[in-house]
Amino acid sequence: MSPTPTRRPYISRTSGFASGADSPRQVLDECIAAIEQWEPSVGAFTVIDTQAARDAADAATKRWRNNAPLSAIDGMPVGVKDMIDTADMVTGMGSPLYDGYTPRFDAASVQGLREAGAVILGKTVTTEFASSQPRGTRNPWDTARTPGGSSSGSAAAVGCGMLCGGLGTQVVGSILRPSGFCGAYGFKPSVGSINRGGSLDYLSQSVTGTIAASLADAWGMARAIAERVGGDPGYPGLTGPLTLPPPQRPVRLALLRTAGWPTLAPAARTSFEAAVERLRQAGVAVVSPEANDALAAVEAATTEAQPMTMAINAWEWRWPLGSYAARDVSALSPSARERHERSLAMTQGEYAGLLAKRAAARAAYAALAAEVDAVISVTASGAAPLGLETTGNPIFVVPGSFLGAAGVSLPVLNDNGLPLGLQVLGFPQADAAVFAIAGWIETALLG
Amino acid sequence: MSPTPTRRPYISRTSGFASGADSPRQVLDECIAAIEQWEPSVGAFTVIDTQAARDAADAATKRWRNNAPLSAIDGMPVGVKDMIDTADMVTGMGSPLYDGYTPRFDAASVQGLREAGAVILGKTVTTEFASSQPRGTRNPWDTARTPGGSSSGSAAAVGCGMLCGGLGTQVVGSILRPSGFCGAYGFKPSVGSINRGGSLDYLSQSVTGTIAASLADAWGMARAIAERVGGDPGYPGLTGPLTLPPPQRPVRLALLRTAGWPTLAPAARTSFEAAVERLRQAGVAVVSPEANDALAAVEAATTEAQPMTMAINAWEWRWPLGSYAARDVSALSPSARERHERSLAMTQGEYAGLLAKRAAARAAYAALAAEVDAVISVTASGAAPLGLETTGNPIFVVPGSFLGAAGVSLPVLNDNGLPLGLQVLGFPQADAAVFAIAGWIETALLG
Repeated sequence: MSPTPTRRPYISRTSGFASGADSPRQVLDECIAAIEQWEPSVGAFTVIDTQAARDAADAATKRWRNNAPLSAIDGMPVGVKDMIDTADMVTGMGSPLYDGYTPRFDAASVQGLREAGAVILGKTVTTEFASSQPRGTRNPWDTARTPGGSSSGSAAAVGCGMLCGGLGTQVVGSILRPSGFCGAYGFKPSVGSINRGGSLDYLSQSVTGTIAASLADAWGMARAIAERVGGDPGYPGLTGPLTLPPPQRPVRLALLRTAGWPTLAPAARTSFEAAVERLRQAGVAVVSPEANDALAAVEAATTEAQPMTMAINAWEWRWPLGSYAARDVSALSPSARERHERSLAMTQGEYAGLLAKRAAARAAYAALAAEVDAVISVTASGAAPLGLETTGNPIFVVPGSFLGAAGVSLPVLNDNGLPLGLQVLGFPQADAAVFAIAGWIETALLG
Repeated sequence: MSPTPTRRPYISRTSGFASGADSPRQVLDECIAAIEQWEPSVGAFTVIDTQAARDAADAATKRWRNNAPLSAIDGMPVGVKDMIDTADMVTGMGSPLYDGYTPRFDAASVQGLREAGAVILGKTVTTEFASSQPRGTRNPWDTARTPGGSSSGSAAAVGCGMLCGGLGTQVVGSILRPSGFCGAYGFKPSVGSINRGGSLDYLSQSVTGTIAASLADAWGMARAIAERVGGDPGYPGLTGPLTLPPPQRPVRLALLRTAGWPTLAPAARTSFEAAVERLRQAGVAVVSPEANDALAAVEAATTEAQPMTMAINAWEWRWPLGSYAARDVSALSPSARERHERSLAMTQGEYAGLLAKRAAARAAYAALAAEVDAVISVTASGAAPLGLETTGNPIFVVPGSFLGAAGVSLPVLNDNGLPLGLQVLGFPQADAAVFAIAGWIETALLG
């Protein structure tokens, strides 16, 4: 077991920039020092460009000195999941089919980050096409374990201080699960909240989101992007204050067990139940499905969220998997080939039926919004599993993806000393409210 | 004025393949002969690959002989708008920023066409980024005139028999307007009906569609694509029979004047009113807004469709225009630079307000569906304008884009002998019904 990495403080790393108590260059140099310490054993990056990052950090440092920052996250060292186009760095998609591929232009989220002054330090490892095949990154809390996926590199890098924030994407559990496994804060926005242009995962449940060393940074990054490039076309995009929404005490929370409940490890369950008890002691009503029909309906509508999500994704992968297979099927992992074969066995009619079931589940979830302020759960059945062959079971986080909901992972639980996330799910297009509640919960549990 | 091109018959060019009366190779050779005749003066293509096309046509010819065609459009010679990725041909986006850009993989629509056996003969000219800046293509009916845009090359090539069909995209009027100007059949699907993956125009009103030499080919191409790669993720995709839906006599049609009515050229108006009169004589009720409140509400809700569409598009172009400008602003046309500046002056809040107005207009249109079977109008104020500086006014076709409706352009009207389209608009996700009605209308007017 590797030494436990130093946890970064639960405050925004940019919070000292305005006063001059801290500077982008200083924070960047800390990240680079962490990279020297951790990257050889963790392998979170596909590209690191310290020189460009130092230049960008110095420029940001000057802007803060001149009282002219470009945004609240100006100068924050960040990484970009290697599914997302960058004009100045290879974008490899976790696949040999994209070896050496350098896009001509930034993706929307990267354009937004650059316009906000963020310092792009590198590209972070993704599983193959942000799906299931891992690409070797290790968990900094225990390098014998997976960091989770598919946003493996962003979560691992943030988890050991190599980055203050990273971009991720989630269609099943690819932000909240690895954030929980690596002790980072994860934000999976509502469907449509952040413009996915130039990120090659145009699946109907997919979102671009953030993984960061504090709740404030996870929010600040996402909000800065949406302010500049909006949400997916047709959506207003993430709205709310430009810095972390103030904490809001919830009146009622729903405890979503999901289909994963029987798989929950004993120590993880103990940790979660202690947190729930603490919230109850703080006066929050935490309701269970036995006591609430709307919640019971959501549990019922999401019991099959994982197999339905896998089937929806399979159909939506007909393209580009068909084109990838036409070019070189041997360059696809066995799991990608299997998904391609599965997609070929499906029909438009089956897919339409799945969309209808998903819409019904979302309607059930919308009804729950009238009864509770948010939903809580865990991000996984326990600590990150040993081994690098899989990224772990997404069973606790797939309902949030299926429902299109906003979700946050708070690194406040543990499984025998290894990190586990408390999942806070909100309601679609009400992402700021989730942060307000998550901020209150964090303080209630840790403060 | 150039000689009037030979109109292709109003039947599918693949209709003789099954019997052996015709063959893909024979049809392709006719297209290549037309290219030799017309392309020097029309300039519809950015890439032509006759050798690859002949190989593909020969393979298709064999499949038909063996009674094993891949689809109803197996062997059809088609072109691909140069906004849409092709793995074997440069994809130039009508911009020097994409000079020499060769994607590694096909777009979804191209993958679908290839899997269906279509013969990809070349890439067709698009205006810059499928927006307003023309790229030199001329109208085959009069080479002093624009072919319309942005799907300029596909419409011009089909209009003079260089292709049996071409892919287009429409966010304002880029399929129906050029189809009308060039005497081709155009199909703008409902929003979401055809998978746009790999076509760089992810705007909320944008669709991939078809321009073809017959209604059957326009439908067959689109349906073959959707069967194989579906619609946009989250949409079931175009459904219905694999070949042209049988004609369906409408009971009631709405005559949508649009904000363009005062601009309608006298001869175009005479041609349209004669068509309306003929439909009335055939027993179809054609209702006007004075006589129908639901239609009046749609007219009112779409009066500003054009400025609202331009504002929606401007915001949605923040990316990638911001990245293009960051790379080389001088490579953008003045109109693209103007759109970029306009986008920078907008806010998320303004955009959200526009989305709400559009949603209200779509609700008004949905109410009209209870009262009429379809909507008719013209595709433009008259014949294609003289000159190549603009692609003409989209005022008659922008309401269909704004409403997200399915639309067909039938080449059955004229303005002093030059082609003009009769626009038939249906209701979202009911594309097959529009073809059934358009087919009946075509026969009623020409048969």
